[in-house]
Amino acid sequence: MDIQQYMHDVGRHGREASRAIARADSKVKNEALRTIAAAIRRESAALIAANQDDLAAARAAGLDSALLDRLTLPAEGVSNMADGVEQIAMLPDPVGEISDLKFRPSGIQVGRMRVPLGVIGIIYEARPNVTADAAALCLKSGNAAILRGGSEAIRSNRAIAALVQEGLAAAGLPANTVQVIDTTDRAAVGYLITMREYVDVIVPRGGKGLISRLLAESRVPMIQHLDGNCHVYIDDDANADMALRIVENSKTQRYGTCNTAESLLVARSVAVRLLPPIAAMLAGKGVELRGCTETQALVSDARAASEEDYATEFLAPILSVKVVAGLDEAIEHINRYGSHHTETIVSENYGRAMRFLREVDSSSVMVNASTRFADGFEYGLGAEIGISTDKIHARGPVGLEGLTSQKWIVLGNGQTRG
Amino acid sequence: MDIQQYMHDVGRHGREASRAIARADSKVKNEALRTIAAAIRRESAALIAANQDDLAAARAAGLDSALLDRLTLPAEGVSNMADGVEQIAMLPDPVGEISDLKFRPSGIQVGRMRVPLGVIGIIYEARPNVTADAAALCLKSGNAAILRGGSEAIRSNRAIAALVQEGLAAAGLPANTVQVIDTTDRAAVGYLITMREYVDVIVPRGGKGLISRLLAESRVPMIQHLDGNCHVYIDDDANADMALRIVENSKTQRYGTCNTAESLLVARSVAVRLLPPIAAMLAGKGVELRGCTETQALVSDARAASEEDYATEFLAPILSVKVVAGLDEAIEHINRYGSHHTETIVSENYGRAMRFLREVDSSSVMVNASTRFADGFEYGLGAEIGISTDKIHARGPVGLEGLTSQKWIVLGNGQTRG
Repeated sequence: MDIQQYMHDVGRHGREASRAIARADSKVKNEALRTIAAAIRRESAALIAANQDDLAAARAAGLDSALLDRLTLPAEGVSNMADGVEQIAMLPDPVGEISDLKFRPSGIQVGRMRVPLGVIGIIYEARPNVTADAAALCLKSGNAAILRGGSEAIRSNRAIAALVQEGLAAAGLPANTVQVIDTTDRAAVGYLITMREYVDVIVPRGGKGLISRLLAESRVPMIQHLDGNCHVYIDDDANADMALRIVENSKTQRYGTCNTAESLLVARSVAVRLLPPIAAMLAGKGVELRGCTETQALVSDARAASEEDYATEFLAPILSVKVVAGLDEAIEHINRYGSHHTETIVSENYGRAMRFLREVDSSSVMVNASTRFADGFEYGLGAEIGISTDKIHARGPVGLEGLTSQKWIVLGNGQTRG
Repeated sequence: MDIQQYMHDVGRHGREASRAIARADSKVKNEALRTIAAAIRRESAALIAANQDDLAAARAAGLDSALLDRLTLPAEGVSNMADGVEQIAMLPDPVGEISDLKFRPSGIQVGRMRVPLGVIGIIYEARPNVTADAAALCLKSGNAAILRGGSEAIRSNRAIAALVQEGLAAAGLPANTVQVIDTTDRAAVGYLITMREYVDVIVPRGGKGLISRLLAESRVPMIQHLDGNCHVYIDDDANADMALRIVENSKTQRYGTCNTAESLLVARSVAVRLLPPIAAMLAGKGVELRGCTETQALVSDARAASEEDYATEFLAPILSVKVVAGLDEAIEHINRYGSHHTETIVSENYGRAMRFLREVDSSSVMVNASTRFADGFEYGLGAEIGISTDKIHARGPVGLEGLTSQKWIVLGNGQTRG
């Protein structure tokens, strides 16, 4: 197989299909999505069988249990996958939405119309459910998708792709609206992330390792998300009970998610009073604390935190802690050590809460709420293709709207420029 | 001079200054802008003298008259430059604007806050007025700017930069908010467009040659604009008089601008009636027509159009013409040969006007209005840093808002995730 030729064909077909899907109306797109969901339910047994083949090959290749875990598609996973596609069918269609129409002194009416981005390349690891999810999000937002899943999942992905094709055909949409790259050759990814003429944006869904590797080589804009080193700052005027509950939820509700708090900052004036009970609550849940010398003086079993601890996304029951002079030091610390993901202040002070919102340079900034709320579903996006810690185009949770752009429209009745 | 070290210092200083300017309030930023404008007026003679030195050097180097033209800063140009900076001071501040606050079922209130992009690199050719204009737009939008003008204008740019510094100092803003790269070494540009850690976006302002060169090597997102191959499509149901006026204005009001029409498409059913008078009007203005065989049959002095003519931005009194079967062929032609800049349909037919708006993939799509309206001032943006023919982040005329992004904000009163 000439992989360069193959990928250029994939790109060209994607570009062609993108023109048709961009103008498809909501009814047709939703029909395709509902047919895909029904086909997934109908073919549940076949999907699980294909997945078992992937798992057998992965076990034979000696792959580790974490990867096997991600690769596994249980019956419940198939059903969730179909549910997800149906939910996307029910979301409002962002394409064609006209906003901000205003008359100008020249007499023309100027506004904006939401339009698809074009061709979206999705690169992900061994989770087969991403195939259906990403295909559905791209289709609904009027984009063509080129999907490249982990090679371990290729049998599962092929089986899911066939059902996506069935849905597209039933609705009369071009088969190339969703293409699954049908080779495990790693060179395919190299072409996908550099074919600017065919691919408008890359969305990597996977670990930090994958993303930083892609970022170094990509020539196509990328909606990416690296670390989630999130902070809770307890201000001088924090409500003690609220501070405890927000730290508890931000840190301990789940340890492995990107919006979990990894660092706690406490204003010096309240540290003596608030830090010991919070430390006791965390100790009770088995969370290890790594703190500054002041933290250690207040919490006997806290280990000393290194510089690196403050910059680390632990994804584990470990929390770095620092006593700070106040808001200024907290903001400086966050902007320096954080990853621009999600930070929250616990405070009853209006001025400081407003300054925190304004001056913390993160994709989500919160007052008196758990960092765990940073999520497309919690924000009301209905679905999420990923979380962006970038600033250009999209920041934070990215839903259907993040897969679109806005063009300008002008409505006139014969106006010319003077 | 170690150019790599120099550029890394410039980048680092820009990043540091970006934090301060991002949180500067509107009053302080406007004070800086008004001081800059006043200093420009006060130092008019000195600016013109510096510009004369640039011109003398350019003449001695044998540079062509078009470049000398662009380089020249007359007294009126100085005054316009000051006016421009004052106008930017009067625009609303986009930074900190909160929108779309909505309560979610969890009880949190979720919305978005507009924030600066960070550090903006502007690369331009020999027009000294861009120095003041770009500095003012970045400052107002809360961004740090790194400006790299054409080497021929370095004396003018240094003189303007000194006045920008005066304004920043008067308002208590960091001097590094606006840095002018003070070397003519071409390697500086290579570093500027690849220092991802220090530069958030590049805005090239200049000709197509400059932009395509930068695009090939840039590792930083770019708000760029290549061709403006704009189309007028005269539909079957066009008002004859309006069609003539819109073609006249779109093509002949100015020949050298990117929103000038370069191609005319006419529906076959009206070509016999409408094309001859339009051709006569254009002939009277000295516009050369290059058309398909049907055009040539109707317009005796039209030359034959080549494939390349249909893909060309002439920037001259030349217009390519094609008779098409109808809307479908027109849209297909535009999406194939056009440059995704600006296109207009002349039509009284509702359905076809709506389809044109929806299906033409350009940054500005118009009904019954001249393509010449595609402009930040005509659209009401108040100022324009450039026009983007890209889809990611910003499309079409880019004003202050295009130099910002939105972060998510969450207002709670102790909510945790269940």
